[in-house]
Amino acid sequence: MAVDGQEQRALQYEQTLMYGRYTQELGVYAREEAARLREDGRQRRSISERSPSLKLLEYEKGRCVKCRICAVHCQRFLMSRVGEDWIFLILLGLVMALVSFVMDFCIALLLQAQKWMYGGLDSNVVLQYLAWVTYPVVLISFSAGFTHIVAPQAAGSGIPEMKTILRGVVLKEYLTLKTFVAKVVGLTCALGSGLPLGKEGPFVHIASLCAALLCKFMSFFGGIYENESRNIEMLAAACAVGVGCCFAAPIGGVLFSIEVTSTFFAVRNYWRGFFAATFSAFIFRVLAVWNRDEETITALFKTRFRLDFPFDLQELPAFAVIGIASGFGGALFVYLNRLIVQFMRKQKTINKFLMKKRLLYPALVTLLISTLSFPPGFGQFMAGQLTQKETLVSFFDNRTWAKQGISEDFTFDTHLMAWKHPQANVFIILVIFIIMKFWMSALATTLPVPCGAFMPVFVIGAAFGRLVGESMAAWFPEGINTDGTIYPIVPGGYAVVGAAALSGAVTHTVSTAVIVFELTGQISHILPIMIAVILANAVAQSLQPSIYDSIIRIKKLPYLPELGWGHHEKYNIRVEDIMVRDVRYITLNSTYRDLQDILTIGNLKTVALVESADSMILLGSIERAQLQALLVQQVSRVRRQEVMRERAETERKRMSVASSPSSDDSSQKVNQEVRFQISTEESTFVPVRPISPKPLKPALKRTSVAEKNIEIPTSPHDSSMGLKNLLCARPQTDVMEESNNVELRQSKRVRISLLDDPDAEDDMTLGEIEEWEEQQLDEQVNFNSCKIDPAPFQLVERTSLHKTHTIFSLLGLDHAYVTSIGRLIGVVSLRELRKAIEGSMTVKGVKVRPPLASFRDSGTSGTSSESEATELHKLWDRHSSLSLPRDQQNHNTDNKTH
Amino acid sequence: MAVDGQEQRALQYEQTLMYGRYTQELGVYAREEAARLREDGRQRRSISERSPSLKLLEYEKGRCVKCRICAVHCQRFLMSRVGEDWIFLILLGLVMALVSFVMDFCIALLLQAQKWMYGGLDSNVVLQYLAWVTYPVVLISFSAGFTHIVAPQAAGSGIPEMKTILRGVVLKEYLTLKTFVAKVVGLTCALGSGLPLGKEGPFVHIASLCAALLCKFMSFFGGIYENESRNIEMLAAACAVGVGCCFAAPIGGVLFSIEVTSTFFAVRNYWRGFFAATFSAFIFRVLAVWNRDEETITALFKTRFRLDFPFDLQELPAFAVIGIASGFGGALFVYLNRLIVQFMRKQKTINKFLMKKRLLYPALVTLLISTLSFPPGFGQFMAGQLTQKETLVSFFDNRTWAKQGISEDFTFDTHLMAWKHPQANVFIILVIFIIMKFWMSALATTLPVPCGAFMPVFVIGAAFGRLVGESMAAWFPEGINTDGTIYPIVPGGYAVVGAAALSGAVTHTVSTAVIVFELTGQISHILPIMIAVILANAVAQSLQPSIYDSIIRIKKLPYLPELGWGHHEKYNIRVEDIMVRDVRYITLNSTYRDLQDILTIGNLKTVALVESADSMILLGSIERAQLQALLVQQVSRVRRQEVMRERAETERKRMSVASSPSSDDSSQKVNQEVRFQISTEESTFVPVRPISPKPLKPALKRTSVAEKNIEIPTSPHDSSMGLKNLLCARPQTDVMEESNNVELRQSKRVRISLLDDPDAEDDMTLGEIEEWEEQQLDEQVNFNSCKIDPAPFQLVERTSLHKTHTIFSLLGLDHAYVTSIGRLIGVVSLRELRKAIEGSMTVKGVKVRPPLASFRDSGTSGTSSESEATELHKLWDRHSSLSLPRDQQNHNTDNKTH
Repeated sequence: MAVDGQEQRALQYEQTLMYGRYTQELGVYAREEAARLREDGRQRRSISERSPSLKLLEYEKGRCVKCRICAVHCQRFLMSRVGEDWIFLILLGLVMALVSFVMDFCIALLLQAQKWMYGGLDSNVVLQYLAWVTYPVVLISFSAGFTHIVAPQAAGSGIPEMKTILRGVVLKEYLTLKTFVAKVVGLTCALGSGLPLGKEGPFVHIASLCAALLCKFMSFFGGIYENESRNIEMLAAACAVGVGCCFAAPIGGVLFSIEVTSTFFAVRNYWRGFFAATFSAFIFRVLAVWNRDEETITALFKTRFRLDFPFDLQELPAFAVIGIASGFGGALFVYLNRLIVQFMRKQKTINKFLMKKRLLYPALVTLLISTLSFPPGFGQFMAGQLTQKETLVSFFDNRTWAKQGISEDFTFDTHLMAWKHPQANVFIILVIFIIMKFWMSALATTLPVPCGAFMPVFVIGAAFGRLVGESMAAWFPEGINTDGTIYPIVPGGYAVVGAAALSGAVTHTVSTAVIVFELTGQISHILPIMIAVILANAVAQSLQPSIYDSIIRIKKLPYLPELGWGHHEKYNIRVEDIMVRDVRYITLNSTYRDLQDILTIGNLKTVALVESADSMILLGSIERAQLQALLVQQVSRVRRQEVMRERAETERKRMSVASSPSSDDSSQKVNQEVRFQISTEESTFVPVRPISPKPLKPALKRTSVAEKNIEIPTSPHDSSMGLKNLLCARPQTDVMEESNNVELRQSKRVRISLLDDPDAEDDMTLGEIEEWEEQQLDEQVNFNSCKIDPAPFQLVERTSLHKTHTIFSLLGLDHAYVTSIGRLIGVVSLRELRKAIEGSMTVKGVKVRPPLASFRDSGTSGTSSESEATELHKLWDRHSSLSLPRDQQNHNTDNKTH
Repeated sequence: MAVDGQEQRALQYEQTLMYGRYTQELGVYAREEAARLREDGRQRRSISERSPSLKLLEYEKGRCVKCRICAVHCQRFLMSRVGEDWIFLILLGLVMALVSFVMDFCIALLLQAQKWMYGGLDSNVVLQYLAWVTYPVVLISFSAGFTHIVAPQAAGSGIPEMKTILRGVVLKEYLTLKTFVAKVVGLTCALGSGLPLGKEGPFVHIASLCAALLCKFMSFFGGIYENESRNIEMLAAACAVGVGCCFAAPIGGVLFSIEVTSTFFAVRNYWRGFFAATFSAFIFRVLAVWNRDEETITALFKTRFRLDFPFDLQELPAFAVIGIASGFGGALFVYLNRLIVQFMRKQKTINKFLMKKRLLYPALVTLLISTLSFPPGFGQFMAGQLTQKETLVSFFDNRTWAKQGISEDFTFDTHLMAWKHPQANVFIILVIFIIMKFWMSALATTLPVPCGAFMPVFVIGAAFGRLVGESMAAWFPEGINTDGTIYPIVPGGYAVVGAAALSGAVTHTVSTAVIVFELTGQISHILPIMIAVILANAVAQSLQPSIYDSIIRIKKLPYLPELGWGHHEKYNIRVEDIMVRDVRYITLNSTYRDLQDILTIGNLKTVALVESADSMILLGSIERAQLQALLVQQVSRVRRQEVMRERAETERKRMSVASSPSSDDSSQKVNQEVRFQISTEESTFVPVRPISPKPLKPALKRTSVAEKNIEIPTSPHDSSMGLKNLLCARPQTDVMEESNNVELRQSKRVRISLLDDPDAEDDMTLGEIEEWEEQQLDEQVNFNSCKIDPAPFQLVERTSLHKTHTIFSLLGLDHAYVTSIGRLIGVVSLRELRKAIEGSMTVKGVKVRPPLASFRDSGTSGTSSESEATELHKLWDRHSSLSLPRDQQNHNTDNKTH
């Protein structure tokens, strides 16, 4: 609910316009102003609508006017249409499809090059090994180096970052052109190396980058692309496109991206995702057809399982076993991945060494992995010569490997040949493949290159499924069904189930099932897949966070953990149990010193603004930066010089009125002169007052508000007026308006003086400066130039943790104030919420309060269990006590304000 | 954020306990209280945890103690597990699968009975016709009658109502056992009649009913089932189950239910929906296998299209045409459906007649439809003898009807026979079928029976697709592809595309595509289907609301329209343009008369509570009912008698003190005596004050706050104290606390007096009563017994319409206050938002203000274009003016409060 940049600009514009008109009633003025602005807007609109055609009519009196007008109309129509969502989505889909296709093409080329090298050198094993190993090492090193130099943000999956961005957190540099280039080039090289890396996560990032860049590009045409909430919606659609065009799986892409990046999903975004992802997948597959890779549009990994009897009911337990085992496996994968990262971080000697030689770690890992998968070496036991794609195709194959009879078919298919070994049978090879690929993938995904973990996990899952399937086929060679017709078991179906289950377990998603349907082009195994995926999710979610959440935690990105499966205790915890009661706040009467204290104590992002320390009525919140600006402005050197100059000038003026010759000292002391001065106000309206030389410091400390009115007299008729103003208790309004006015004039002048003499030396001694600053700090804060969020989010102390979590994740909040009938009694930030959800103590229902809370309890809020009637008492209390004089707390001139 | 019932009870408990301890410092007291309660809770918990086993150990010293303990452990474990979500979801899935299966079975029986009757009477066409027509008329009439008698809420689809309920609106009687029975029985009969009605919508409702009833049932076991937000989550899962077990389509079910019922979807609910829907679909299909209907688990309408070349790229334009035509068709269907309903409503004579004879309309419609579909009659041109299911199976058939050669195959298949007619060819029959079914379905879905529109529309769509497919097949008999291999066109694929597109257009969903995949068991046509569905949606959404939104509007349910496709103007409208500035509010100083005025003027649901009319600082909101209760309590007969009695007693007491004999008049006038009196307070703590006999009415009117303190003297040492209290300006606190105290004591006594003499006659004349009530109305409102929502939702005036819509639909808000730095400046309710989204004026960017707004503009808030600095001026203004005497507005004794 913060006022965004555009509005701020408008606000500044307002302020400069408002200048000099403060004596008018502001309500009336504001309405005039509003009418004017509206009129302006309308005129601007009508001008922009009509001007091209009008101009044309004026300048071209030729024959083809009609034709031209028509063209202009068309152009205008097109321009207005450019703003529409679907144009954007089509463009996005098109671009992403092209990117995906080109990347796939390049990756295939790179992989082919390796095979070609490896095949060409088959005379010498050592040379073969060198070629086999050097190639990926070079590629990965290049990828890591390129990424590191161009945009380090491009490393890794990108889904965790997108999740954070879609939650509303601004991550710098994550959506720039540099990152796009680094991600695309780095990913192509990384995947071309043949390491077990995936492209799904990076594709989500690439699509988001595309969308962000397109938004920027399109903002040349229409204004709506500058709207933040719209951009977020477009990013959500882009995530769907990313997955969609990576697997040619539009539906699965939409669902997967929703599950992975969102906590709450706006259904109105749904069609955007579907539209863009479908278009993208369509183009992606059409490109394949045009490239003569395919005869028509079909699935990426098309399977040919039988339709009439896809599986027997009695096979379901085996599918359930795959699901449960995948759940454990998925959790283990996430754990292993995190363990490796943490190990590398903790070992300081390794860490230091690696920090120096950034490319060494990727190179070493690549060397290790490619050595182990060298086909003539250990690779022969794990089908090392197959690429990821070929492996997957062979797993989804319709034939049963375990059967001796069909074993001869292997010779006809080079892919399947890899799984045949003279010494070891299929089961051993599959087990070795699974174990080796498991740790290899977990290790490879920690590399600082753009890479995802989805595809490697998918392949491992397929291998595991195939293993179970082959075992079942060996166990029941005639099929399970005993009703007469023999339906042999299809191990390929098990592979599909395993792939969906393991990838679902690692990513904590159910939509991998849909992705699998779209990848294979068959939905006949829907029930086994759904059962396995759900079981895998149930197991994995209760053991470990998803791989993306794990990375979020490792990278310490701001996040909010999900409420887990059936943790119904969360319904019983309330905000009052987790909130911080010791809220830092400033009041309308706060001095700059209070501001300083607050800014030095904590590193809060925002500070609450309350009416007064007694009432605690929440008025709004102010960002830290705003307060800092206020403070800096108050004690800045420029302002000090300004004040000094003003003081000197006052002296001089008074002397010139009194025509006394003793003014030389002060004018010498302040040896600057105002070379020119801009003053747009009508002098009759401005009650300007010079300040008398301040007599004593303690006295000054108590006249902080009036001190604001330091002013250069533009007309010589006062000096007594200022004193009167200082002494008599005028209503605050005018004072404030004037000081606002002064503020503006000052800021104007500051600019001038900076322009004027940027290197004017300071004419005060250090002691004087300190004293002056102390004085300044004791002044009451003038909030006029400050941006206040006038409606920060508020909760009641009885709001349940569950509801709080919902609201935080729904609205992407960072913190919320806890109020009770207008009074601020606490604050809950993401941190407290995270602790409450993750922490063992609070989750068990025991009410834990922050240690500091008890100190404030008796003072402002002992409200944890009070009834609301008590709250109202307080209100009444405050209400009546407002009329009483309160001297003990406010050491300012409070008799004005109260 | 309202305090719910449980909390309210706790609050009342608090209040009664607090009684008599008001002199203690409340903060301290509250903390003690909190500690006590926490301790209580802990004890209670530990008792409930340990007691069963302890008891057992005490009472049973037999041999099998261990066994028993084990059993108790198991039982406790089970009990704790019962609270888990997945138990609930499994139960829900199981119940719904059984319901679905049994209903399908019954419907099939009913349909078979009709066929059997029709077939048995083939000797006589008249008898045949009578049987054909009477049967559905009876069934529909019964269904309509049964629904009307048992639960009229069961009529119709149920999805609109579920959408409203999931938005947080409580619709009474929509989730009761009665409705469940009515819906199940009514739906079975309605579908058994053979009319073009669907079961998807009602199944969503039935599943929700199931979930609600299960929640109630399960709440015997665990407490969490009473949690409202949990119940909403379970209802969302139930909707998925409803669709899932209706079509055996778990994924499509989840997605469809999300699209149809939610505006924002919590991804954490995702697994719930998938889990329950998968389990339900699984059981539903397993039941079919066990019933020997199927050999194994397969799709409901299994298709056998070829996998290797499902469609040619050049067929895509035809699919796109199907999509666009379906879009127009879908919009037409919604329009036609609404037109029929509105026509029936507008025609008052028809309407009156139908209101009297409720069963006549359904009977007449049924008669018309079944007459037209009588197979030997007009039905022969539209395959009248086929049920919905048979029709669909024939549409999805693999063979091409248009080809002459295959036409002979028709004779082997009774279903396909229906489409063969000696005089008319397939195209004509299909066109007739589409046209007739179109209006029939639109008409039939307006019947007051439980029925949905999805399936009829699905069938029509399939027919349209088949028509296009057959045309294509006739046009390109050799297939389109010219590359050598002949791939003939598959019209069945077109039928699938058409079905998905038309049902998607009518319901405005994309997930019909997924439903179609799951229904047919084939995903090979994914791209054509996605393209057609998206195009259909694009066309339909720009023309008409979805059928469910249309029904919501017809039924005038509270709703919020969606922001449409690319209406980017919405980003530029702000809350200040649409908000109502003339907010009804009450202040802390409001009198009961103000309350009465507010309650009589508008029919607001909640009233804003502000600090004072000048400050306008929003403190909270109060529900209308609460205010009414306050008002009623103030002027109630019981309280009047109470006051009278007290006054009399005061008189008597005083007389007994003064022992003057002149008290007879007054004691005669108040001839009741207090028979017994409960007083738990320690008299030393209670500063009780009797009131002096009121001298004059005008004077009384000005002492409203003090008038609260009418009190029976329990100790005889004051009578002057009361006067002193009346005259001197004491701080408000004590007064309020005491009056709160009085309130409580009064309410206690009220109960006693009601128990005592419930029919005590009124002793005041009408005039006296009126005068007394007038007096009472001028008193200041005591908000202590009133439930205040202490943090109503607040917006800033610069919030965009887009964001407002998001927040309203996210949080299910009904209204939100617009505040500016704590000050209330307007209110936005659903109505304004709806108007702004739908209305033509505001949408175009022209700022329309409610007519009343201008009156308040100059007074409190002319803030439409002011900068925030101005806001702060106001604050300061108010801040300083609080010290000034303000007599013009508050005619109460305000010098106390200000």
